[in-house]
Amino acid sequence: MSAEEFRHYGRAVVDWIADYYENIESLPVLSKVEPGQIRSNLPSHAPQKGEPFEDILKDIAELILPGVTHWQSPNFFAFFPANTSGPAILGDLLSSGLGVQGMLWTTSPACTELETHVLDWLVEMLDLPHKFLSSESGGGVIQDAASSASLCALLSGRERATNFASNERGCNTRFVAYTSNQAHSSIEKAVKIAGIGRENLRLVDVDERFGMQADHLAQLIEKDRQEGRIPCFVAATVGTTSSNGVDPLPEIGEICRKNNIWLHVDAAMAGTAALCPEYRWIHNGLEMADSYCFNPHKWMFTNFDCDCFYVADRGALIQTLSILPEYLRNKASESGAVIDYRDWHIPLGRRFRSLKLWFVIRHYGVEGLQHHVRRHIELAQQFAGWVEQDDHFELAVKPPLNLVCFRHRGGDELNQQLMDQLNRSGDLYLTQTSMHDRLTLRLCVGQTATEFRHVERAWKKIQEIAAELEAVH
Amino acid sequence: MSAEEFRHYGRAVVDWIADYYENIESLPVLSKVEPGQIRSNLPSHAPQKGEPFEDILKDIAELILPGVTHWQSPNFFAFFPANTSGPAILGDLLSSGLGVQGMLWTTSPACTELETHVLDWLVEMLDLPHKFLSSESGGGVIQDAASSASLCALLSGRERATNFASNERGCNTRFVAYTSNQAHSSIEKAVKIAGIGRENLRLVDVDERFGMQADHLAQLIEKDRQEGRIPCFVAATVGTTSSNGVDPLPEIGEICRKNNIWLHVDAAMAGTAALCPEYRWIHNGLEMADSYCFNPHKWMFTNFDCDCFYVADRGALIQTLSILPEYLRNKASESGAVIDYRDWHIPLGRRFRSLKLWFVIRHYGVEGLQHHVRRHIELAQQFAGWVEQDDHFELAVKPPLNLVCFRHRGGDELNQQLMDQLNRSGDLYLTQTSMHDRLTLRLCVGQTATEFRHVERAWKKIQEIAAELEAVH
Repeated sequence: MSAEEFRHYGRAVVDWIADYYENIESLPVLSKVEPGQIRSNLPSHAPQKGEPFEDILKDIAELILPGVTHWQSPNFFAFFPANTSGPAILGDLLSSGLGVQGMLWTTSPACTELETHVLDWLVEMLDLPHKFLSSESGGGVIQDAASSASLCALLSGRERATNFASNERGCNTRFVAYTSNQAHSSIEKAVKIAGIGRENLRLVDVDERFGMQADHLAQLIEKDRQEGRIPCFVAATVGTTSSNGVDPLPEIGEICRKNNIWLHVDAAMAGTAALCPEYRWIHNGLEMADSYCFNPHKWMFTNFDCDCFYVADRGALIQTLSILPEYLRNKASESGAVIDYRDWHIPLGRRFRSLKLWFVIRHYGVEGLQHHVRRHIELAQQFAGWVEQDDHFELAVKPPLNLVCFRHRGGDELNQQLMDQLNRSGDLYLTQTSMHDRLTLRLCVGQTATEFRHVERAWKKIQEIAAELEAVH
Repeated sequence: MSAEEFRHYGRAVVDWIADYYENIESLPVLSKVEPGQIRSNLPSHAPQKGEPFEDILKDIAELILPGVTHWQSPNFFAFFPANTSGPAILGDLLSSGLGVQGMLWTTSPACTELETHVLDWLVEMLDLPHKFLSSESGGGVIQDAASSASLCALLSGRERATNFASNERGCNTRFVAYTSNQAHSSIEKAVKIAGIGRENLRLVDVDERFGMQADHLAQLIEKDRQEGRIPCFVAATVGTTSSNGVDPLPEIGEICRKNNIWLHVDAAMAGTAALCPEYRWIHNGLEMADSYCFNPHKWMFTNFDCDCFYVADRGALIQTLSILPEYLRNKASESGAVIDYRDWHIPLGRRFRSLKLWFVIRHYGVEGLQHHVRRHIELAQQFAGWVEQDDHFELAVKPPLNLVCFRHRGGDELNQQLMDQLNRSGDLYLTQTSMHDRLTLRLCVGQTATEFRHVERAWKKIQEIAAELEAVH
């Protein structure tokens, strides 16, 4: 593709995306296709000859779009958001265009240094502990997802607990990790991957607000110690996926410090709230954590993938993950004056992901980001208020931030039907969880374009369909 | 950013990228900045107010570009390539624009189905064993990097060897993995991560062409078995990073089959050569592999990240990595009729990466891709011929494909100086390895725009600087 063709088709794709956002509210949020339907319209074999770009672009609208669930719709309230924005898309475009692979400082110094710099900015923006700064003992790195960040944290904890012996000799079945029974499934996945084993992951009880019970954690650790096991890792959550529950970091941190256990704090979605001083209470106690992550690709207008992972002791992380084959040797690395991010995560290769984050922060400014985050929380709280005022519904828990967990009082079957009908309507998309052993609906406000009218319409639709279901029940 | 602003600035970024490619040959390939130089020009704090997009774009040229090592330069001959192309950049742009998160089929059916479909296309395009097709027992998935693919393969092998017991009970120190002493460092990294331990990774000897010695592998396995260990994983390489050595898959496959060991084949760069029937010998014996990967983000014009990972038994992979929390439950997954790619890799979230791959295959067509791959190999072979004809130089090994390993006959110090001066010149970028305990230069032809004149100029520059160095030595 020549430069002229790239200009021409590039504009066509930019316009396509602009049109998409202008029309996104007219599309059913949750795709309505059946399994296999998208594939059935695609040719069985790759083309032998190249095809005109116009044909490819036409197929996006005709063959692909019906199978898209519109995460960027303002009516998307499911899971956690994965929001994006114009500056993020364009920053990512520039990253694709430059096509650098930043595994080492020397393979693109700007890729490494901008990342370190922007992650230091974020320490200040979220008022995180200073030990996470690259100028102190720690530092930040962009990971693809919080799952990978948790895995890196777990591995660091495993290694620190035995002076990096498992890396050399292999894991044994005496290591134990801890997290609450509300923690993200990625912790269980990490424990399996790291060779610790699911049986050695203790699920700590939670309180009525779905935060970890620190005294139960202490009991479990004590018992494991007495039985000769090696407690090596605690994953605390700030904003659980199920209900946005917040674990008590001060108490957990004390226990970890006393027992010399690596404390990782996963604030995948909720962390962004700390942009606003009034929500920084979610990070109380974070100064005792060994590592921390939050995802700008969830709630900070930066498209996937962009998880910001911080460690207090970068030496421990690097020692856990470093490798140095001859073909990667270079003077800059050997000087010790640079960061080589290949040793900060699982894969070797990496793209220039800090560009999109830099674009977002500069485009919005701190105040712009605060404005949107505050508005999302405000909208969620309004919605929660409506739920409370309707006798047919109840809140499963008081929502701390932008996720509302609620249910119709008519029981699991009615709630399931309610959710299915809402999602089939195409007007909105929400998902469920289980709380107190009851099916509970989750409405999370976090997409970039979500405004009052979308949340209001969602609530009216929920009431309307609920009324229909009540009539037949 | 409004739709109109997005159109406006989107065009500006597209033009910026087009300009960049038009001027890329005038830029020094390897960045000349000193450690810390890029950061020193960035403001210490994030802006409170949003900034105009024009300012951000201006800073790319002024603050970022000097710190970019130009991977897309036709004079980039270092490491392995990480090439890209117009259709890849635009496919990736569309992925950023749609902003879908394809962790489950239901969270965007097209994201899953296009990926499965294009990876099935590639089985045919590379003439891979049919068991890797999704319509058979296997299937393909896009991973970020070959490192992650190797880790997933290793975990599957670890689990299969003990009926998925390590996932439950944790790893022990009896597992053993095998790879050649020329294999990529990611295998060592994976072995540490998975809790197997570096001491339990056997590095098999290689022959004079740097391919694994199968009889040595058999001996090591036999010894480990006799000592009560559990051989669970062999990583064979098609095209090692150091020298493009190709392991003998037929012999290795037999040994693995006899011993019921998971065989993973890493063809990260070289696999792409199999687009051309005359290079499919590199995959001889692949029918005995349990898993396989190659990276379109290396040598198939698709920007990072895009590693295609195939398994022959998707059940084993899924059982190794699956998790199912309540908040991810949905009818489509429970029907068993769909693929949920979250269970095929480490992270939970995933972007719509198949779009760029689909764009590339359709834009070039199979014949277009074959043309470029053939041309790269031809250019490398021409370069190797020039090396052979010059008495001052020698080939370290006959190059099988597009990577030439060579050295000046003047010894390690001269070769180091030669490489450093070449890279400092900005005219080209190449890297080194160690072969036969001697510093060896690597010249890999694989960037999208590399033509005869670039390779010819590189060789002339190499001869010219070598002559200067000979004069002073």
